[in-house]
Amino acid sequence: MEYRLYSFWRSSCSWRVRIAMNYKKIPYELVSVRLARVGGEQDDIGYRKRNPMGQVPLLEWEVDGQVRQVAQSMAILEYLEDVRPDPPLLPEDLWLRAKTRQLAEIVNSGIQPLQNMSLTAAVEEFGASGPEWRELVIRRGLAALERSALETAGRFLIGDQVTLADVMAVPQLYNAQLYGVDIEDFPVIARAAASCGEIQAFEEARPEAQPEADLS
Amino acid sequence: MEYRLYSFWRSSCSWRVRIAMNYKKIPYELVSVRLARVGGEQDDIGYRKRNPMGQVPLLEWEVDGQVRQVAQSMAILEYLEDVRPDPPLLPEDLWLRAKTRQLAEIVNSGIQPLQNMSLTAAVEEFGASGPEWRELVIRRGLAALERSALETAGRFLIGDQVTLADVMAVPQLYNAQLYGVDIEDFPVIARAAASCGEIQAFEEARPEAQPEADLS
Repeated sequence: MEYRLYSFWRSSCSWRVRIAMNYKKIPYELVSVRLARVGGEQDDIGYRKRNPMGQVPLLEWEVDGQVRQVAQSMAILEYLEDVRPDPPLLPEDLWLRAKTRQLAEIVNSGIQPLQNMSLTAAVEEFGASGPEWRELVIRRGLAALERSALETAGRFLIGDQVTLADVMAVPQLYNAQLYGVDIEDFPVIARAAASCGEIQAFEEARPEAQPEADLS
Repeated sequence: MEYRLYSFWRSSCSWRVRIAMNYKKIPYELVSVRLARVGGEQDDIGYRKRNPMGQVPLLEWEVDGQVRQVAQSMAILEYLEDVRPDPPLLPEDLWLRAKTRQLAEIVNSGIQPLQNMSLTAAVEEFGASGPEWRELVIRRGLAALERSALETAGRFLIGDQVTLADVMAVPQLYNAQLYGVDIEDFPVIARAAASCGEIQAFEEARPEAQPEADLS
């Protein structure tokens, strides 16, 4: 099976999938889709056919001559767990599985969609300050994630095992720093992120490590 | 096992979980948490301890004298699938499972968080019209859901079997109508919702069927 991952170095949702594929040692061809508010490749007709939401990541592969495509990072992460359960990114215990998904969804539906490029542009059109808006929703969301993780956290957000909760938290924390949020206010999340920083799969998925990264 | 479901009749995310619990015939005690922009019970300290996000739904149960709680509707839905896989709300085929989750996430992270009470209040503070904002994000999101479902839809969004994609779409389509979006623009989603309307589990989960519903 040959996977193609449509990704962009600055997209935190693409980053999540890169971490999981690296962690599970699933090889993939990286296809860069350059995102931009205006004139970005996400608005090309060809790409919109692949993903009507016009977002990355998108995972694509072929089976018996048929092209299969899956968008939405949580759906891709769950798919990877289904096809390659080892090493796991979900605990075996059903309650801890549920808590893992709860923490993952706080980021996935509770923080990221409110601070991404498209929503920031939309609120700016209504006269808001983009940076202030982003800082507000990230700070509020991370505070809820921090409190929600207190019960289960160890070295990582769910005990001492890497899970999808960490996969989601690391790119979000990076964005938080980018937008001026002090991560020392969130010691549990910061500790988990530091633990992830020691893992090669996380390091190689970082934006700066991507071939198309433009650090100029 | 005795489950308590913290729910509110007008909350579309609570509605999703009510559908799934009914569909899987999992009994539960319904605890109403009255949501309001100001003075809602979601801001009570006791409830914030249960869910730092201050949102419904929340599923609660006890094991060996310990209280277990899970928030975030997608996490609860996946948990229900783990503990009660029959009848299934995810297909067996791994690609169709992934597509189901893709469609579910378009609603869960791509539409609902941008049009809920809390975000609408926030954009109104910046001078936007709440109703116009909601109509815009719902219309754009449903258009993407419609196109994304074309490949798999039958009577329901994924073939002829009820899945989590339908569980997510039905409450979102109801909100769309509430906010003046013409659902005839989305025939595939409307057909799936009509098919769901024939299923008792969906009917009994409707807002108007909840004991605390205030229809005055």
